[in-house]
Amino acid sequence: MTAERLEHDLLGERAVPASAYYGVHTLRAIENFPISGTPISIYPELIKALAAIKQAAAQTNLQLGLLDATRASAIIQACQEVRGGALHAHFVVDVIQGGAGTSTNMNANEVIANRALEILGHARGDYAQLHPNEHVNMSQSTNDVYPTALKLAGYVGVQQLIAAMQVLRDAFGDKAREFADVLKMGRTQLQDAVPMTLGQEFSTYEEMLSEDIARLREASLLICEINLGATAIGTGINAHPEYAGLVRQHLAGITGIPVLTAPNLVEATQDCGSFVQLSGVLKRVAVKLSKVCNDLRLLASGPRAGLGEINLPPMQAGSSIMPGKVNPVIPEVVNQIAFEVIGNDVTISFAAEAGQLQLNAFEPIIAHSLFKSVAHLRAGCLTLAERCVRGISANREQLRRSVENSIGLVTALNPYIGYANATEIAQEALLSGASVYELVLARGLLSRAQLDEILQPDVLTRPRAPIGLR
Amino acid sequence: MTAERLEHDLLGERAVPASAYYGVHTLRAIENFPISGTPISIYPELIKALAAIKQAAAQTNLQLGLLDATRASAIIQACQEVRGGALHAHFVVDVIQGGAGTSTNMNANEVIANRALEILGHARGDYAQLHPNEHVNMSQSTNDVYPTALKLAGYVGVQQLIAAMQVLRDAFGDKAREFADVLKMGRTQLQDAVPMTLGQEFSTYEEMLSEDIARLREASLLICEINLGATAIGTGINAHPEYAGLVRQHLAGITGIPVLTAPNLVEATQDCGSFVQLSGVLKRVAVKLSKVCNDLRLLASGPRAGLGEINLPPMQAGSSIMPGKVNPVIPEVVNQIAFEVIGNDVTISFAAEAGQLQLNAFEPIIAHSLFKSVAHLRAGCLTLAERCVRGISANREQLRRSVENSIGLVTALNPYIGYANATEIAQEALLSGASVYELVLARGLLSRAQLDEILQPDVLTRPRAPIGLR
Amino acid sequence: MTAERLEHDLLGERAVPASAYYGVHTLRAIENFPISGTPISIYPELIKALAAIKQAAAQTNLQLGLLDATRASAIIQACQEVRGGALHAHFVVDVIQGGAGTSTNMNANEVIANRALEILGHARGDYAQLHPNEHVNMSQSTNDVYPTALKLAGYVGVQQLIAAMQVLRDAFGDKAREFADVLKMGRTQLQDAVPMTLGQEFSTYEEMLSEDIARLREASLLICEINLGATAIGTGINAHPEYAGLVRQHLAGITGIPVLTAPNLVEATQDCGSFVQLSGVLKRVAVKLSKVCNDLRLLASGPRAGLGEINLPPMQAGSSIMPGKVNPVIPEVVNQIAFEVIGNDVTISFAAEAGQLQLNAFEPIIAHSLFKSVAHLRAGCLTLAERCVRGISANREQLRRSVENSIGLVTALNPYIGYANATEIAQEALLSGASVYELVLARGLLSRAQLDEILQPDVLTRPRAPIGLR
Amino acid sequence: MTAERLEHDLLGERAVPASAYYGVHTLRAIENFPISGTPISIYPELIKALAAIKQAAAQTNLQLGLLDATRASAIIQACQEVRGGALHAHFVVDVIQGGAGTSTNMNANEVIANRALEILGHARGDYAQLHPNEHVNMSQSTNDVYPTALKLAGYVGVQQLIAAMQVLRDAFGDKAREFADVLKMGRTQLQDAVPMTLGQEFSTYEEMLSEDIARLREASLLICEINLGATAIGTGINAHPEYAGLVRQHLAGITGIPVLTAPNLVEATQDCGSFVQLSGVLKRVAVKLSKVCNDLRLLASGPRAGLGEINLPPMQAGSSIMPGKVNPVIPEVVNQIAFEVIGNDVTISFAAEAGQLQLNAFEPIIAHSLFKSVAHLRAGCLTLAERCVRGISANREQLRRSVENSIGLVTALNPYIGYANATEIAQEALLSGASVYELVLARGLLSRAQLDEILQPDVLTRPRAPIGLR
Repeated sequence: MTAERLEHDLLGERAVPASAYYGVHTLRAIENFPISGTPISIYPELIKALAAIKQAAAQTNLQLGLLDATRASAIIQACQEVRGGALHAHFVVDVIQGGAGTSTNMNANEVIANRALEILGHARGDYAQLHPNEHVNMSQSTNDVYPTALKLAGYVGVQQLIAAMQVLRDAFGDKAREFADVLKMGRTQLQDAVPMTLGQEFSTYEEMLSEDIARLREASLLICEINLGATAIGTGINAHPEYAGLVRQHLAGITGIPVLTAPNLVEATQDCGSFVQLSGVLKRVAVKLSKVCNDLRLLASGPRAGLGEINLPPMQAGSSIMPGKVNPVIPEVVNQIAFEVIGNDVTISFAAEAGQLQLNAFEPIIAHSLFKSVAHLRAGCLTLAERCVRGISANREQLRRSVENSIGLVTALNPYIGYANATEIAQEALLSGASVYELVLARGLLSRAQLDEILQPDVLTRPRAPIGLR
Repeated sequence: MTAERLEHDLLGERAVPASAYYGVHTLRAIENFPISGTPISIYPELIKALAAIKQAAAQTNLQLGLLDATRASAIIQACQEVRGGALHAHFVVDVIQGGAGTSTNMNANEVIANRALEILGHARGDYAQLHPNEHVNMSQSTNDVYPTALKLAGYVGVQQLIAAMQVLRDAFGDKAREFADVLKMGRTQLQDAVPMTLGQEFSTYEEMLSEDIARLREASLLICEINLGATAIGTGINAHPEYAGLVRQHLAGITGIPVLTAPNLVEATQDCGSFVQLSGVLKRVAVKLSKVCNDLRLLASGPRAGLGEINLPPMQAGSSIMPGKVNPVIPEVVNQIAFEVIGNDVTISFAAEAGQLQLNAFEPIIAHSLFKSVAHLRAGCLTLAERCVRGISANREQLRRSVENSIGLVTALNPYIGYANATEIAQEALLSGASVYELVLARGLLSRAQLDEILQPDVLTRPRAPIGLR
Repeated sequence: MTAERLEHDLLGERAVPASAYYGVHTLRAIENFPISGTPISIYPELIKALAAIKQAAAQTNLQLGLLDATRASAIIQACQEVRGGALHAHFVVDVIQGGAGTSTNMNANEVIANRALEILGHARGDYAQLHPNEHVNMSQSTNDVYPTALKLAGYVGVQQLIAAMQVLRDAFGDKAREFADVLKMGRTQLQDAVPMTLGQEFSTYEEMLSEDIARLREASLLICEINLGATAIGTGINAHPEYAGLVRQHLAGITGIPVLTAPNLVEATQDCGSFVQLSGVLKRVAVKLSKVCNDLRLLASGPRAGLGEINLPPMQAGSSIMPGKVNPVIPEVVNQIAFEVIGNDVTISFAAEAGQLQLNAFEPIIAHSLFKSVAHLRAGCLTLAERCVRGISANREQLRRSVENSIGLVTALNPYIGYANATEIAQEALLSGASVYELVLARGLLSRAQLDEILQPDVLTRPRAPIGLR
Repeated sequence: MTAERLEHDLLGERAVPASAYYGVHTLRAIENFPISGTPISIYPELIKALAAIKQAAAQTNLQLGLLDATRASAIIQACQEVRGGALHAHFVVDVIQGGAGTSTNMNANEVIANRALEILGHARGDYAQLHPNEHVNMSQSTNDVYPTALKLAGYVGVQQLIAAMQVLRDAFGDKAREFADVLKMGRTQLQDAVPMTLGQEFSTYEEMLSEDIARLREASLLICEINLGATAIGTGINAHPEYAGLVRQHLAGITGIPVLTAPNLVEATQDCGSFVQLSGVLKRVAVKLSKVCNDLRLLASGPRAGLGEINLPPMQAGSSIMPGKVNPVIPEVVNQIAFEVIGNDVTISFAAEAGQLQLNAFEPIIAHSLFKSVAHLRAGCLTLAERCVRGISANREQLRRSVENSIGLVTALNPYIGYANATEIAQEALLSGASVYELVLARGLLSRAQLDEILQPDVLTRPRAPIGLR
């Protein structure tokens, strides 16, 4: 038989396992939300953020004379233990939950209260000594604690994502330099266009990631604006006038995150704009990563009936039936992460739009969607960098031949023979299989010397002033 | 100076141009909704549907003794004129409007009333003789008229779309037969897989369209369920008990559409489920059309540095700078239609979810989104069939070479030499550039005769019992 | 030290834990896809479906003389054990994976092969005796096994969802009957409209669910069309001509699911249309469930400053700061599930559109998204039925007063006093606070007897022929 | 008979109406893309932007000695005329078009060339004198002109949107001040929470718009980064090395927009990140506007069976059947604009993800979607401000009563009587209908004086240090 203790809430009395750090509110939530089977502890940064907030609040309440030193220090110690990861397993409510995060907040209040009771030598559940709501949650409401916790956890997650994107950016950058002299045909609309280098192609991915990192940094600053001190609806009811300012300082100190207090706490308490914006930027990252992976898969198509321009490193056998087949499994998994992130963005839009009056009750699904997007993108960037990009090689000869053989070279002759002549040459080349070089020569439009000067491979890949031909 | 007449509504008196068939309610709507600048007359089937409903209602009200014969026949004649297209220019309210379609319904009531007044020899605006609300709208509410009109117009639009899809399906089918004997390499994950015919490839597009047509037919039947007789909220207030049944019969007779009365009119009045479902099927069509266009563009990539398997007919010069470049502009425009349809589906989901209690006030944007999806998909299918698919040719030699040269042939040897041997052969072929045939022969795994039998090109593209080799 | 065995694939040799039923292909996948941390075993129906397919294939291969009885019976026994749930823990590849499902298929092939080896008295990894690819995967390819497994698992999931929706439908139906005589004001656009009963309101939810169940049934039949026998790309390479037909029969027998073989296997192998369609219907279900939950939350708003028409059963304390507050947590969690499902639908659209040529490599994320949608909707329906709807009570007195006090009653007078008079009465009632009844009487528009007859409460909620007043 | 002239392109010769300023390329595009029926001239800022670019290019080409003064000045004059609006009717290609914008660019090249020919005294179509490609398009490609034009037009549109949002913000701000002393109950999760003022509620909308304006400004700066000088794929082929720098200066001078040249032109030519980001911010604006409109409709629900807290100004009769009914039509239309914008964002995500290699061919649908979002949001903001917010009034007495009568007051007692006592009081108040004040007094928990001090209405809406009660 499992030992139990009795706890009480507005619905009556319930038995909680004696060993549980959580209490009756958490128990109700477990019963009410058997949705995904995934507990909030899957997001350790969220648990740490909750504990950091509770610690900052206790420090502030102590400073303001609202909380006695004994209780305050027990709460602070319990929070530090949670931040260290000791009690994550007791954060058990489902990631998909009703109640605007109240169950998550109460799970934190109860675990911290019971651990603090233990520290003070009391029994778990002896809330007359130290109460989850009255002491751990003092000066707080779910409605300021929960969104603040989401922002702190989101901020940390975004920094980790940025670090992963930097790894990927550098992997692309290294390849850009490695392939700087590999000439190839550029393509627009999948049709042969004009020459470029493979290095230029990979440098676009490097640049793209640099820009996306900059955009993510900006978005991550927006989620540093918190509403602690707002309490229930932003009016600050039951909070000391100095609380908001002080708790922000303590929280910044504890976490090292440059948190700011929102100028209008009523607005900040109901607003999900910064989550929507962050998700929009994550979607941007996803859209572009997916485009890059599409490119990599296309350039590596083959080995014989495809473009065959580059080789991705083989990572696993590709087929249960086709021996020797190797597939671009790493870009494929990143494509799928991107599709998930884009879907998550729609979920977040719906949830944000559904907020009503002084609160958005749907922040739990916003959090779940955002955290998944951030974590999966991070995993995708690292996997793509380490298991794909770093091992890419180029089929240099095939690439060079494709330029020499190309009709697209005719574009470079445009300034010298005119658009109409050039169009005719291109059409004839396509029909006859002849080279542009030969056809121009045969028509006497340019001399061999002129053609050689105009079509020097390495100058075709950058701007050039027109050559005085005569 | 423009002649004017005065009209009156609950907000007071307003001057309406004397020449206008519409009245004060329409005037207010014009002023209130200066959003897109696009009038509802851009959807002629919607205007015809409104007139068909008004005509069916007048016939029913006459039959039930609620409307006198003089007014009824004037209303019916006016409706017939509208259905003939004579007065579309007077349907002027914006496609994006508040008010749950009331402005569209009142626009119809007013135009029909004023035209009926004219027929009866009265002045426009002399509503004491024949009233937009009391006579034209008799036994009706916007809340049953408007969704019914959307369904009728949607039904007609979907039939037109199906006809266009049949044209496209047949174009693909013709190509499937034309290319039935063109051997090529199939690809999975953009990597060379095993042989198939180009005819098989095009037959998938034919089959895909056949299936999509079947799904659209099913969805179009769902929108035949109407709620006429529901009046304001589905309780049928102010409607005669026999009205719903009779008006359905009249409407079916007028339109030839197999309309049914919903079993629960309260539910049917607030429900947008059939619009969501139809949009979901349109999205399915879009997703698959886009995939086909992606394939066509990929197979036609080149002309020299791409797959170059097929040629799309050139439709316009492709570049303002690159002479002779021709791009796959027709598949590209269809891709974009597909992206629009997928976005419209999200808009419709949002609008449908936002319905509250007894009504969904956001049906105007549902209608606008659906009608755009249907019309643009139809244009896209016809354009794709006539300006692209019918002119596609195959590069037969290149396709055959890619099979002969392929490593993927090794899959066919799997049952005879085993997965492990086959994997080794494939790897060696890739590294050395040698053919699978030669390597198997060199290793003595199979005889030339056995290889020739197993690798007969035409049997590689269909199931076959294993050959007893000895 | 953990005991290990060596396995070999096309990338070389790797040590696998000796205790593992999975092999080197699974090991590579674990390393390649460290994305979500969630193994495919989270979807037990998918594991069972894979085993059912492998069993059906073994039975067919035995029947066709392609597989000897010893190996066949060992494979069949292993599959039966997997279907019984004995080996789920060995299905360890990530739900988000590249490779078009190859890793999932190979995970199944390896677990079944090693268990079969064990049954035959051989060591795990002794693939010379019984090989994952050559025997367990015989006549198959990931490209027919994997989508078929998704369809089987999806089918079972949808049946479970339908069962949950029936529970919810019945809960609403019971309330519809309980509240059949509770008069209340209907609302359109959140404005007071005309009277109805609370029973009518709840009957719409019952009806809505009935319709959605019918749509889901139709969609679930679409995913019964499978492509077993297609092998790599649908041409059936390496499959016996009778294989497709026979394996279908065995599979139907094993699972009890009415599977059909697709008419065009090349099309069926690349097509994700039925997944898109099913997701579209799930989105429809989600959109409407969310609308219902919005209604419930709105009708239960209060307790004093809201509509206060109904009471949801209290399920947990609502606030960490506001004592006694009880929130509609169950509808809120269902709203969030709906938002997730709608986002999943966009993910699925993206993944389906991204298919190329003979295969869609992105089915893993389609599967993950679909399975989440199905499972969470099911949990949501059960939770909503059992923890909310069944406990709803009505505030009957307040509802009746709202009708008696209503201006909306004036609509019922429309046929007798005309739209213009009725409009004036309504406006005066609003300004003065007087009742419609009194104002009509005061103006002498109708007698008290006439008013009493027209405004009989119970006839206001259904159609009625106009009363001959004199 | 219409007079015609013959023009020639790579497909052959075609007759163009003699009166047309456009030429054969535009003609082909009209025939190829009969999709939406909406010409690009619906976006006048796009036409002006194209002309500004062509003018800047001509000025630069003149400066670099690439273009003679005669042709340059004719082109410049023609561009100025287009920028003045004189020739918009000749920009006739469909807003939905294939070809990556080439048809739009060629439409501009042709109109400007023919107008320039006219200025020079030549006949339209006499391209030997001045050629659309060789002179008007000199140093350019569609692939740098088109995205740059989209950015310029988008920038102007966003500034107009910001101006409209400022109008709306100020309307809310005025109301915030007007309602600064109107006490009401705040609500979370639609349940009565704690007191606030109506002014605080409206100030959140003001603040929200201020933040959104700031985010839009940031996003609009991102689209100032252009790729002129990139030509076909970003390598600058056929462009003078000094062209990119000079054309940027000229363009900034002509438009007054702070354009910058992208650091990596290959990346910038294929990248749609800034459009995705801008659309994400527009979606943010839409999500929040929709939330505000939901609130307004909810607060104005009634008139008798709703919350009835505020009154929206009546803008039109609300019903064709319910006399006197007035609906919140202006917020409703804004909701629908928001739903459209959110759908457009998904369209843009799809189109951006579909870019391949050196170009995104789907920018036309990105442009169409973005421009619609910007224009409709602008119309929505102005309409909402002028036709709704400015006319809102408050039902002050009802609001005050709801506070006095509220159970939510108990939260303010929490610090004095404890969470457990407060919970009991709240429950008893709900069951008995008694007031919190009376119950606390009856239980002797606080004195009348203490209660009066704690529950002073005006201090309940802001933070306060706990009162020393004894």
